Amino acid sequence: MNVDGVPWRTIWPAANGRDVEVIDQTLLPHALKVQTLRGLDDAVRAIATMIVRGAPLIGATAGWGMALAMQDDPSDAHLIAAGAALVAARPTAVNLAWAVARQTAVLAPLPPSERAAAARAEAAAIVEEDVAWCAAIGRHGAAALKAHARADRPLQILTHCNAGWLAAVDHGTALSPVYALHDAGVPVHVWVDETRPRNQGASLTAWELARHGVPHTLIADNVGGHLMRIGRIDACIVGSDRVAANGDVCNKIGTYLKALAAADCGVPFYAALPASTIDFDLASGDLIPIEERDAGELLTMTGRDGEGVVRTVAIAPHDTPGANFAFDVTPARLVTAIITERGVCAASAAGLAGLYGRTA
Amino acid sequence: MNVDGVPWRTIWPAANGRDVEVIDQTLLPHALKVQTLRGLDDAVRAIATMIVRGAPLIGATAGWGMALAMQDDPSDAHLIAAGAALVAARPTAVNLAWAVARQTAVLAPLPPSERAAAARAEAAAIVEEDVAWCAAIGRHGAAALKAHARADRPLQILTHCNAGWLAAVDHGTALSPVYALHDAGVPVHVWVDETRPRNQGASLTAWELARHGVPHTLIADNVGGHLMRIGRIDACIVGSDRVAANGDVCNKIGTYLKALAAADCGVPFYAALPASTIDFDLASGDLIPIEERDAGELLTMTGRDGEGVVRTVAIAPHDTPGANFAFDVTPARLVTAIITERGVCAASAAGLAGLYGRTA
Repeated sequence: MNVDGVPWRTIWPAANGRDVEVIDQTLLPHALKVQTLRGLDDAVRAIATMIVRGAPLIGATAGWGMALAMQDDPSDAHLIAAGAALVAARPTAVNLAWAVARQTAVLAPLPPSERAAAARAEAAAIVEEDVAWCAAIGRHGAAALKAHARADRPLQILTHCNAGWLAAVDHGTALSPVYALHDAGVPVHVWVDETRPRNQGASLTAWELARHGVPHTLIADNVGGHLMRIGRIDACIVGSDRVAANGDVCNKIGTYLKALAAADCGVPFYAALPASTIDFDLASGDLIPIEERDAGELLTMTGRDGEGVVRTVAIAPHDTPGANFAFDVTPARLVTAIITERGVCAASAAGLAGLYGRTA
Repeated sequence: MNVDGVPWRTIWPAANGRDVEVIDQTLLPHALKVQTLRGLDDAVRAIATMIVRGAPLIGATAGWGMALAMQDDPSDAHLIAAGAALVAARPTAVNLAWAVARQTAVLAPLPPSERAAAARAEAAAIVEEDVAWCAAIGRHGAAALKAHARADRPLQILTHCNAGWLAAVDHGTALSPVYALHDAGVPVHVWVDETRPRNQGASLTAWELARHGVPHTLIADNVGGHLMRIGRIDACIVGSDRVAANGDVCNKIGTYLKALAAADCGVPFYAALPASTIDFDLASGDLIPIEERDAGELLTMTGRDGEGVVRTVAIAPHDTPGANFAFDVTPARLVTAIITERGVCAASAAGLAGLYGRTA
């Protein structure tokens, strides 16, 4: 999508034909800077420290991480070790394991001498496929969301965390339908959850919507339920880090609370995601591993002081212990529908089977 | 309650026999400082800027604010003007209007020359009554909460915002039962919601629990639903800013979301509040005015830098609009019971009538 009129992606091959470049998402919204990934370790670190984040982008980075690994050492041992290192970088988003498995299936049968080139080609294919999938999600989702518009105001959408183009390679998942509607001239306004503790809503979603010109308002995570109760939201749409075969949706912590409010208030609640996020090997969302991250993410906050200097401050008492669960599971019964590159389906085994011909 | 072994209250008459002193809650948890209120304007400012906050403490401060006003000018005109200024300071907590009405009923029949002394006596009575009410809430609530304890772990309580002694004069409302249990030797652990955007959980609840020695863990507001889903919470308890005659509970924004999760997960959800918070004049919570505060509270964050200097930083993009609704309404159907100084009752007109002999 555009940053003040200039098209960007989140990840691309560097001009030297060897390295990979990504937007450093830990510095947004205060600075837009590019990081170069020169080898496997850089890719693992970029995923673990959330320089890149968002399930589709984690998958794309893992694809390129395998290519960086093969350039340095295309041996069988390194192929296995590289895949293991990438999969271990974060536990919840299944796109990571999906991309590694896809590269491994391509590379393992090849002689080591051919692996570097093949891995680069496959990484590029993963990236282009993600772009095409996200664009298709935008088309299907735009039609679904538009059905909920009222004549007397712009379509009022609530989203949680960042499932925009910064979470993918381009377009995004949950925000792809929003961009599609906006670009088609349909008036739309997005209520952006702050998404504590890492503030992906405030730092990333608000930033990318502003840079593309989509009207939006930032709210605390606590506010969405009230807005739904008083009729200010027409539909909720979120991304996902892993969808189980029964349609349970794992997504950023707090998603479950918004889905409960949507169900209580009669507001439709959509999850938008590509095929790479669906884990047909897990029968239920209760089996999805939930990442616990360092409590420091909760106990400190980063921002600009009066002089524009970026500082990190401690916001809780010195001796406060914190717990930092990064994801939760929204039961399929609370999800109105799942939107994928193949269309819109019920959040159920039957719904997913209808689109993909697969069940657990 | 205690601050590192020393008993404190939130508000008390100054030693000079004229002024009033309060803890400045805008500086916590980074500094414990006392502010002197010398007249009506100071009292109004303390309420409006949240130097004092919490429904019972707002009521107590309004009681003392009327006394400060009468010391300066005991005329009928000033009696009316002082009450109007205090009531206008914040819209949602009914305790404010309750305390002003109570003072006005005492003072209006008196000759002006007797009003200053009478107002001081009534303010002191309001304060002592609040302390006694909160202590009684602690006794009734402790029995209710203890029934949910499991044998294999400390009682696991989730609370939202701050309804501890800092929100009242002493003991607190939602936390009074927690202190009663802890002081009686019952193992209890509190999950403390951060409570964005003003962070009363991180700044006040975590601070007061730590200073009194109650085990607790800070979590983002997004986390409570997940904890309930995985069985980590035995009961939720919150305070309230206004309870309608039908048992609807208005409280800090985000309370509704936790009540939804509690209902979905079969976790009991209690609201604890004194009589002064019940508005029998409002038939339904939908009629309660919901305060909207400055979006700056959401867009900036205050904390200590590496040298311990307290700084405020901007956390969102420069051009991000925000909305800041301060309260929401939890429908009575989601509230397991209401705990007051008179006992425990159903969240309904019949339940409240059973305790108070009144309906709307």
